[in-house]
Amino acid sequence: MFERKHIISTKDFSRDEIDLILDRAEELEPVARKGHLDLLKNKIIATLFFEPSTRTRLSFDTAVKRLGGSTIGFDTATSTSIAKGETLFDTIKIIESYADAIILRHPREGAARMASEISSVPIINAGDGAGHHPTQTLLDMYTIRKECTKGIGDLNVAIVGDLRYGRTVHSLVYALSLYGTKLSFVAPDQLKMPSNIINYLKRGGIEFFETSDLNKVLEDADVIYMTRIQKERFPDPSEYLKVAGSYRITTDMLAGVKDDMIIMHPLPRVDEIEPGVDSTKHAKYFQQSFYGVPVRMAVLSLVLNAEM
Amino acid sequence: MFERKHIISTKDFSRDEIDLILDRAEELEPVARKGHLDLLKNKIIATLFFEPSTRTRLSFDTAVKRLGGSTIGFDTATSTSIAKGETLFDTIKIIESYADAIILRHPREGAARMASEISSVPIINAGDGAGHHPTQTLLDMYTIRKECTKGIGDLNVAIVGDLRYGRTVHSLVYALSLYGTKLSFVAPDQLKMPSNIINYLKRGGIEFFETSDLNKVLEDADVIYMTRIQKERFPDPSEYLKVAGSYRITTDMLAGVKDDMIIMHPLPRVDEIEPGVDSTKHAKYFQQSFYGVPVRMAVLSLVLNAEM
Amino acid sequence: MFERKHIISTKDFSRDEIDLILDRAEELEPVARKGHLDLLKNKIIATLFFEPSTRTRLSFDTAVKRLGGSTIGFDTATSTSIAKGETLFDTIKIIESYADAIILRHPREGAARMASEISSVPIINAGDGAGHHPTQTLLDMYTIRKECTKGIGDLNVAIVGDLRYGRTVHSLVYALSLYGTKLSFVAPDQLKMPSNIINYLKRGGIEFFETSDLNKVLEDADVIYMTRIQKERFPDPSEYLKVAGSYRITTDMLAGVKDDMIIMHPLPRVDEIEPGVDSTKHAKYFQQSFYGVPVRMAVLSLVLNAEM
Repeated sequence: MFERKHIISTKDFSRDEIDLILDRAEELEPVARKGHLDLLKNKIIATLFFEPSTRTRLSFDTAVKRLGGSTIGFDTATSTSIAKGETLFDTIKIIESYADAIILRHPREGAARMASEISSVPIINAGDGAGHHPTQTLLDMYTIRKECTKGIGDLNVAIVGDLRYGRTVHSLVYALSLYGTKLSFVAPDQLKMPSNIINYLKRGGIEFFETSDLNKVLEDADVIYMTRIQKERFPDPSEYLKVAGSYRITTDMLAGVKDDMIIMHPLPRVDEIEPGVDSTKHAKYFQQSFYGVPVRMAVLSLVLNAEM
Repeated sequence: MFERKHIISTKDFSRDEIDLILDRAEELEPVARKGHLDLLKNKIIATLFFEPSTRTRLSFDTAVKRLGGSTIGFDTATSTSIAKGETLFDTIKIIESYADAIILRHPREGAARMASEISSVPIINAGDGAGHHPTQTLLDMYTIRKECTKGIGDLNVAIVGDLRYGRTVHSLVYALSLYGTKLSFVAPDQLKMPSNIINYLKRGGIEFFETSDLNKVLEDADVIYMTRIQKERFPDPSEYLKVAGSYRITTDMLAGVKDDMIIMHPLPRVDEIEPGVDSTKHAKYFQQSFYGVPVRMAVLSLVLNAEM
Repeated sequence: MFERKHIISTKDFSRDEIDLILDRAEELEPVARKGHLDLLKNKIIATLFFEPSTRTRLSFDTAVKRLGGSTIGFDTATSTSIAKGETLFDTIKIIESYADAIILRHPREGAARMASEISSVPIINAGDGAGHHPTQTLLDMYTIRKECTKGIGDLNVAIVGDLRYGRTVHSLVYALSLYGTKLSFVAPDQLKMPSNIINYLKRGGIEFFETSDLNKVLEDADVIYMTRIQKERFPDPSEYLKVAGSYRITTDMLAGVKDDMIIMHPLPRVDEIEPGVDSTKHAKYFQQSFYGVPVRMAVLSLVLNAEM
């Protein structure tokens, strides 16, 4: 049924496969809400985090443990044999003999794909540098499906902030394009959506709109997906401050939005969302973060062929 | 029965509540001694240590696992999203959706209280800077109750060392004051008990005695509670050495003490206790450290309403 | 039956004891291969790694969890009370009251022996500086027993590389000497086997051969045990490069070897084995790494008297 052994890139997935994962996540959501189900009983899952990512790691760890499995692993590369010069190849060859599946976070783009070519056990990519982070995209899709009142294909999704370097955003655009969702891209000139993605959308006939003015999308958006703009992208700090201030959502801005518009953010956020927004009905970013648990449960149970 | 959802400060507790926790700890002590009881089966407990504290963390981890639960978490802030600027507010909002309870260690005073105001799941304060560390106080109280031959209210407890900055000591004084224990404070002038605590005791009519001479309390003490004097408190290293040498317990000093006097220490110790003391019947600090396990089991099972 | 409570040094073991452990490992190997057996159910095993060693730690962690136990611990000393000046003595006194057994990795030679003199629960030495690492030797022996077509005593084992400082190698020579295995030592002059080991072999009448030329042992060897030559051993970098290049195994060199010769390496490797060798039938180093799991399961179950 589920043909994919490794979870490397969102781009590997068809719409049917995404739907299958989201369906499974929906079945498992009650377990994720402080429940337990022994789908991974007696399984050991390795969480190899060559760079820190607390939220992703704890979310996977929770998913494994609520399904009755155990984890082994590390949370930074400093305490690993890497310091002694070990290659990723050797690490994977060793850990595949210990664990039933490997969750891999690595700073180098392509690391997860390479690992999947070596490993006899499933590899789940938990982020590889500027590359992919497919379970983030899947939990974004799950959030949209659960929290919006219309079907994914009928929505108008505005993506705001750093659209140039934001890995999450590129994968999300790809996934949404499979459903024919209408897209708006809101970014300063320096951080616009790259041309390869723009061209991909044009070739596929996907409707999209580009602007540098957040106010232009507020009224029509069903989803406003905020992202963090990183200081390091700007040679001039004053330039950063000016830009960061313009791609920030405040309670004042919510006056004219749709009643059922939702605000998402992959987190961590810095200043992109005014704290007052948290208590509005539009704020769904903490919900989104929680959905990482059922989605990761779904992925784990599917690649390990756990019977429901 | 147990009304308290969060465990933030010893000062929140009445004498009845402390007794209730210590009673539960007593029931669970056989489990803590290499046993197992599934009170926390299928529960996930987050251990969020924003600063390292190995003993406290391992003691909690042991308590959770002997009760059949699982832990997720981190042991220093360096590998967390904090480095990316995430607020404690956001961290708690995220982790409360993963875990059934949160054990929080944080360098900032008031962090645990703040977390308890946000979190829908129980927060257990495992130390917040110069603030509180309630499970340390509870295990101190448990040690006194178990290892002394008289009731807590009938004892003479001498507290020695850094009484000014020592967080543990202030909470312990508060807890003992609920039982009417007689108190002696032994400290150099620079590290005397702060006036707010002295005034609190005076208002409550609690009997206490202050001295800078350790020898003056040896004979009458039922408990000698040693603490570490930190070098950093002294601008002049030679001054530190002089002081540290005077607040040290040696086997020679045990000649005239009560037969059933016990020596306690929150650990880690540096030089406050001569190694020869370890093998005397008075030494109870390793026992005290062990009692952290049943006491933390008790706290966890009570806040999570686990049926015994 | 198994008399040894602590596992400190290979030199503590008789040949019968080694055989007993390897027999147990053989029984447990199917469990190590992605299985589960509740031999350590309700047991808590402490993994105290005062210096990082990812492979050893994860291998022990896997062994514990496949046998139904739990682990507590740390993976570097930086996040421990050591930073506050705690002695190893105090750490062991505390942890022995939490855990059913302690796996100890420590940079100081003799640390594990010292711990075993204090601890009421079993200590398993997972490496103490330039001292011992007995489970590494046991897994090496297990690999030889499993992967070679003749009995251990009938083999010709060539050990290559840094024979002077290599802890693993000295213990392995001791263990093999119990079986009367023929030994060849291949090393540059600066890194020859130390005289105390040479004298030990002479006294015991063990046959051995020393050379600095790897080519001299290729034809006759049943086992080629490669080790890493560390740059730090050489004052002159060009000298290092010359030496390192001479103690490297390549596919070309495999033309004249025995059909059933196996290549081993304790890993991590750097440049000692050409990647092309990995896919030959001779390469057994990843298998060897996996065998750490059943061997550590065996050791744990024996010291804890778990009934099979």
